[in-house]
Amino acid sequence: MNDVTAAALAPALFTLTTGPVNCYPEVLSAIAKPVLYDYDPAFLAFYEATVLKLQKALRIQTVPVILQGEPVLGLEAAAASLVAPVDVVLNLVSGVYGAGYGEWLKPRAGSFHEIRVAYDEVIDPAAVAAFLDAHPEVTLVAICHHDTPSGTLNPIEEIGRVVRAHGALYVVDSVSAWAGVEMDLDAVGADLLVTGPNKCLGCPPALSILAVSDRAWAKMETNPAAPRASMLSILDWKEAWRKENPFPFTPSVAEINALDAGLDRYLGEGPEAVWARHATTAAAMRAGVLAMGLELWAARPAIASPTCTAVKLPAGVDETALRTLMKRRYGVVISSGRAETFNRLVRIGHMGPTAHPLYAVVALTALGGAMAELTGRAIDIGAGVAAAEAVIRG
Amino acid sequence: MNDVTAAALAPALFTLTTGPVNCYPEVLSAIAKPVLYDYDPAFLAFYEATVLKLQKALRIQTVPVILQGEPVLGLEAAAASLVAPVDVVLNLVSGVYGAGYGEWLKPRAGSFHEIRVAYDEVIDPAAVAAFLDAHPEVTLVAICHHDTPSGTLNPIEEIGRVVRAHGALYVVDSVSAWAGVEMDLDAVGADLLVTGPNKCLGCPPALSILAVSDRAWAKMETNPAAPRASMLSILDWKEAWRKENPFPFTPSVAEINALDAGLDRYLGEGPEAVWARHATTAAAMRAGVLAMGLELWAARPAIASPTCTAVKLPAGVDETALRTLMKRRYGVVISSGRAETFNRLVRIGHMGPTAHPLYAVVALTALGGAMAELTGRAIDIGAGVAAAEAVIRG
Amino acid sequence: MNDVTAAALAPALFTLTTGPVNCYPEVLSAIAKPVLYDYDPAFLAFYEATVLKLQKALRIQTVPVILQGEPVLGLEAAAASLVAPVDVVLNLVSGVYGAGYGEWLKPRAGSFHEIRVAYDEVIDPAAVAAFLDAHPEVTLVAICHHDTPSGTLNPIEEIGRVVRAHGALYVVDSVSAWAGVEMDLDAVGADLLVTGPNKCLGCPPALSILAVSDRAWAKMETNPAAPRASMLSILDWKEAWRKENPFPFTPSVAEINALDAGLDRYLGEGPEAVWARHATTAAAMRAGVLAMGLELWAARPAIASPTCTAVKLPAGVDETALRTLMKRRYGVVISSGRAETFNRLVRIGHMGPTAHPLYAVVALTALGGAMAELTGRAIDIGAGVAAAEAVIRG
Amino acid sequence: MNDVTAAALAPALFTLTTGPVNCYPEVLSAIAKPVLYDYDPAFLAFYEATVLKLQKALRIQTVPVILQGEPVLGLEAAAASLVAPVDVVLNLVSGVYGAGYGEWLKPRAGSFHEIRVAYDEVIDPAAVAAFLDAHPEVTLVAICHHDTPSGTLNPIEEIGRVVRAHGALYVVDSVSAWAGVEMDLDAVGADLLVTGPNKCLGCPPALSILAVSDRAWAKMETNPAAPRASMLSILDWKEAWRKENPFPFTPSVAEINALDAGLDRYLGEGPEAVWARHATTAAAMRAGVLAMGLELWAARPAIASPTCTAVKLPAGVDETALRTLMKRRYGVVISSGRAETFNRLVRIGHMGPTAHPLYAVVALTALGGAMAELTGRAIDIGAGVAAAEAVIRG
Repeated sequence: MNDVTAAALAPALFTLTTGPVNCYPEVLSAIAKPVLYDYDPAFLAFYEATVLKLQKALRIQTVPVILQGEPVLGLEAAAASLVAPVDVVLNLVSGVYGAGYGEWLKPRAGSFHEIRVAYDEVIDPAAVAAFLDAHPEVTLVAICHHDTPSGTLNPIEEIGRVVRAHGALYVVDSVSAWAGVEMDLDAVGADLLVTGPNKCLGCPPALSILAVSDRAWAKMETNPAAPRASMLSILDWKEAWRKENPFPFTPSVAEINALDAGLDRYLGEGPEAVWARHATTAAAMRAGVLAMGLELWAARPAIASPTCTAVKLPAGVDETALRTLMKRRYGVVISSGRAETFNRLVRIGHMGPTAHPLYAVVALTALGGAMAELTGRAIDIGAGVAAAEAVIRG
Repeated sequence: MNDVTAAALAPALFTLTTGPVNCYPEVLSAIAKPVLYDYDPAFLAFYEATVLKLQKALRIQTVPVILQGEPVLGLEAAAASLVAPVDVVLNLVSGVYGAGYGEWLKPRAGSFHEIRVAYDEVIDPAAVAAFLDAHPEVTLVAICHHDTPSGTLNPIEEIGRVVRAHGALYVVDSVSAWAGVEMDLDAVGADLLVTGPNKCLGCPPALSILAVSDRAWAKMETNPAAPRASMLSILDWKEAWRKENPFPFTPSVAEINALDAGLDRYLGEGPEAVWARHATTAAAMRAGVLAMGLELWAARPAIASPTCTAVKLPAGVDETALRTLMKRRYGVVISSGRAETFNRLVRIGHMGPTAHPLYAVVALTALGGAMAELTGRAIDIGAGVAAAEAVIRG
Repeated sequence: MNDVTAAALAPALFTLTTGPVNCYPEVLSAIAKPVLYDYDPAFLAFYEATVLKLQKALRIQTVPVILQGEPVLGLEAAAASLVAPVDVVLNLVSGVYGAGYGEWLKPRAGSFHEIRVAYDEVIDPAAVAAFLDAHPEVTLVAICHHDTPSGTLNPIEEIGRVVRAHGALYVVDSVSAWAGVEMDLDAVGADLLVTGPNKCLGCPPALSILAVSDRAWAKMETNPAAPRASMLSILDWKEAWRKENPFPFTPSVAEINALDAGLDRYLGEGPEAVWARHATTAAAMRAGVLAMGLELWAARPAIASPTCTAVKLPAGVDETALRTLMKRRYGVVISSGRAETFNRLVRIGHMGPTAHPLYAVVALTALGGAMAELTGRAIDIGAGVAAAEAVIRG
Repeated sequence: MNDVTAAALAPALFTLTTGPVNCYPEVLSAIAKPVLYDYDPAFLAFYEATVLKLQKALRIQTVPVILQGEPVLGLEAAAASLVAPVDVVLNLVSGVYGAGYGEWLKPRAGSFHEIRVAYDEVIDPAAVAAFLDAHPEVTLVAICHHDTPSGTLNPIEEIGRVVRAHGALYVVDSVSAWAGVEMDLDAVGADLLVTGPNKCLGCPPALSILAVSDRAWAKMETNPAAPRASMLSILDWKEAWRKENPFPFTPSVAEINALDAGLDRYLGEGPEAVWARHATTAAAMRAGVLAMGLELWAARPAIASPTCTAVKLPAGVDETALRTLMKRRYGVVISSGRAETFNRLVRIGHMGPTAHPLYAVVALTALGGAMAELTGRAIDIGAGVAAAEAVIRG
């Protein structure tokens, strides 16, 4: 094995990706706890307490649901549970993940519409309002909050007001935004919001978190197409959180231990404080990127997510070459684009434990250094870091 | 909180259940490792290496599949992937889990048959042969190896020879037997065998393991009903183990770390040695149960699984009262029955780290003591432990 | 490597020794926390909080001292710090550890006396009173609370009253008793009591805990022989616990993390509850030993420590053969005797996490089985376990 | 608690100190392993294997010694064991630690000399040669390799040649250099070299490591002043590493588990590779410090240690204010000076896991930002980071 291969195969020194992310030390301690039998009354009580702690963290009135698979499970289960052949679905697409979600909605819907914008843009609430005015038959609207492959953040609260006024069900994928982005779920008014512990909560990937409104429960219960007795069922888990009820199947005990510790960390630090450091880290990163003469992917800084910075690849720079060099020389691993954004941008995650501004400095140094080498241009890393530090200093 | 409640809510001192089971210390150390980005080349190489290590542990020629959910996912995915409306399915039922699997097979099959035996019995290979002779149209046969709610072990190798001679696909649920029971997968000849790390391998519950034959892959690939782009898809993961290929979605990184350590433990100790201590533990347990004047659930000791001992509840003994007293007074948690076996038996698991004969002694003492109190009869705990110890001494 | 060697080199399945003991899971989780810089204000505050938590656990008025080495350090440091050439020392010897402590006291004292009893007996308070009446010049009395190599427990409270009436300083080695034995340190009135986290508190061996009276501090401060600027100094650490003060040298950060978790466990369960399960475990063990026809080392059950059961070796049984067989066949590791008690007894620890009565059953089974083989006699293991279980049932 | 206090009490995000340092993840995993009984044959064999692994890491011919306390124990024990009233000791002092060591040597020596240089300088081998020529009666020479409070590195190999030619015993404190600095112990020729796992090996502080020559063993064995039956004894541990021998007292089991993992990490990465990243990190740090217009403490860069960078405090900058601001705003904790260097410099450690060049970038950003605020001067952080990055790029 030569040195280049060895460096590639060494674990990253700094995992600054959009997920899986680094876990908080408290989370890694908790995941190594002894694994209890799921019907040990100690675990039944613990599971109930964790779900209620999650409710507190979500700041919602209904009891949330944990599904035993990483958030794609929650997203697929939401589509399968809520959409019936009677439904007219509007899918809002500002990126790869929003578009992908259509693949799960469309075959299940009676009819299917989309509003699409460029993948460096976000959905305009006015366009949604206009569409719904023109299509009173729409029964369900779906949106991706933070379309991770673009690093852009849709205005889910404003769109939520429009959808609520219209009366349709509102499904939100907030997997990589919740717990890192300031948000008020009451104001958003989602009927089903899917998120997970493996992004801004700093836990490993293996669970889905669902906030479900009473209206969404009613829809699922009356939807004959909604999965039951299946890994894809949300209904099966509705009452499973109560310590006197059985589980549909064995929950992922170690991951529940980890989630509980992640929630303690989040509530202990305080959601507002957590959101603030995500925002500051992103602001520092963006200031640095611009100061180094690189371009953000997002059409405007205002629509870039506090949990991710997507940087345009300069012409001629191959994303794999860039990320390989960043790992080999600096020990820094960042995320690639996906599908339409692949090889057009790279992404630096600001999530959970890495949402600290000094990680922006680490990312800027590695990104700037590797860009300089691959482009042969002078990249002013110093200017980048100085700009980031100015943001930190406030 | 009174003392009784406190004892119920305290974690078990001895978790001697049929799963989730205690994890090996090496597994708990490994699950707390830093979580890598799934596209870090270090993780891609690690995932591939773990799958190949799993192949070695399974002693099979094809590359196995890991699905990212506890074994019910593997079981549901197998039914969904293999069964098409053209199929004539024979489900072999000797217990609750075998019967339950029919619920997933039947709606997907063109036609559906079952051979059923009493739940304290196992399937007779001759009966299968006779049925298949009479029904040459059968295309798929399914069986549960160790029907955990009964603690009985079906002769999957003998039945496999019958099925292979017939030419049908052969689906085996060996979730709670594999890695604890002596078996030769080549001789079994399953086309799809589902198991998991959370039983005899001593890992947490969160992953499925699938051994898939070339014939089963071919069937899935030509089955239009087989899930694709879904949590339930096996096909999506067929080539995902190769380090140069993408994952369908984020694998459960921490659980993969745990699985890898569980495989090292298993291969390091040696499968034959691991099977032997499962067998000795079960033999000690059964000798003790009989010596205390209690009855085994299994019609004959020869069909009881080395990984679980199911004990009949004497008339008048409530299973919850029994298990609650065992936990409160002795710190021992065991498993209840399920469905038809609920409140008719209790079960002591011998799986992974608890497959050591001294845990049989622990279980016998707690079981005997609690039975004595609840029945008001003299139970000769001493005779039970002495009989168990005699087995250990050999 | 043959199978016998492999079994010997495998880690014990049940470590039922007198220390190092198994650690509580909470302790092992805590010891893996990130290691902080000792002058990080976060650590300074944590260290202070841990010392004050320790004070609460000790139920004393003065602030205790943590020394950075396992309890032999505390014991040597106590001798070095308190004894001056002007002192007349009375060492009370009922076992190997009491006798050994004389080796540290004698060379430092002006004159040195001992009261010695047989090693299966304990010190009689009346004998101490008589000696002190006859020797008014005695300035310091030392005693080992639980002389571990004999498993016997001296009446330190009654002797403390005698010593206090006399006016001498009172030094108590309670390393393997504190936190497992009911005791009231105010009533004991020790001027310096040495203990450690590595016995009944269920932590690893690496720290000493010292409860120091104001009178003992005064003696050390005026004793020119007391070590200063040394690993052996207690004085160096007197004020180090305050977060605004420097440490004499780097404390063992990971072990402090572990100690803190051990204290949480102890205070959370409640000292009285912890003592009760140590007592019940020991009672169950002794009932079982006697029922199997084996003999306790202690002259009377009343003087046996709740934290250890010492069992006499029958004639012709070699202790190494016995312990080797117990490990190889049963996975159980127990302690040997030491010095005068070596090869005359073996010891089963009841400390911290293993102070649960079912571990007595485990120990009895392994001990009885191995004894039966080595003596060729019938050992009624059943009677032993039944007697133990009767104690548990109460 | 106000926000400033909360920030101070939060654990550091980046612990970039001169020790205790961050531990490698592998080390934290290992320290949480089950704690074995020290006389479990499994532990006896493990301890022996760890000592022999340590010998391999030290690349020496004699078997090294582990003492059960952080390296001050090793240093005090070395002075106590080697120095007798017949000895004429020469202590070489280029910093606070070298001077402090004299406090342990002087009272034990027959006569005592020192060569002292300014604390931003190192010892000149020629001066040692001249002194020894003038003082043929010198029997022992002591030196601190990396005098941490100054961050300077003495030429122990060159001085070793001089001492060896003279014939005196040679005692080297290499606590914070070994495993981070390129060195050949054969060429150094130390008779007793003290180091520890808690610096460049990335383990917690709780053990001392001693490399002892045959000549040093002979001296100890014939030195009546050498401690025996004491925490300070080296002799007690001479043969304790052999699995058939007893320990003088209980070793710190969890810390031995950690050390073993630290050695695996060191040998697995390769000592040369480990040294190289320490050197590169230090070079990047120094380039950055100079580029920001700050001054290094070391009189010349060539004498600065690869394991630590000491930066002069500009006039008017209070060290506590600086370090507090660095922690509060940037989450970075660095070390203060000690004694004569206190409030004259601050120190950034490059040890073990933090010996990666990107940590130099982190440190430069935080240091530069805080300096700018406290001095009111423009500090060109960008120039600093750019200079560091240029070193990384090579």
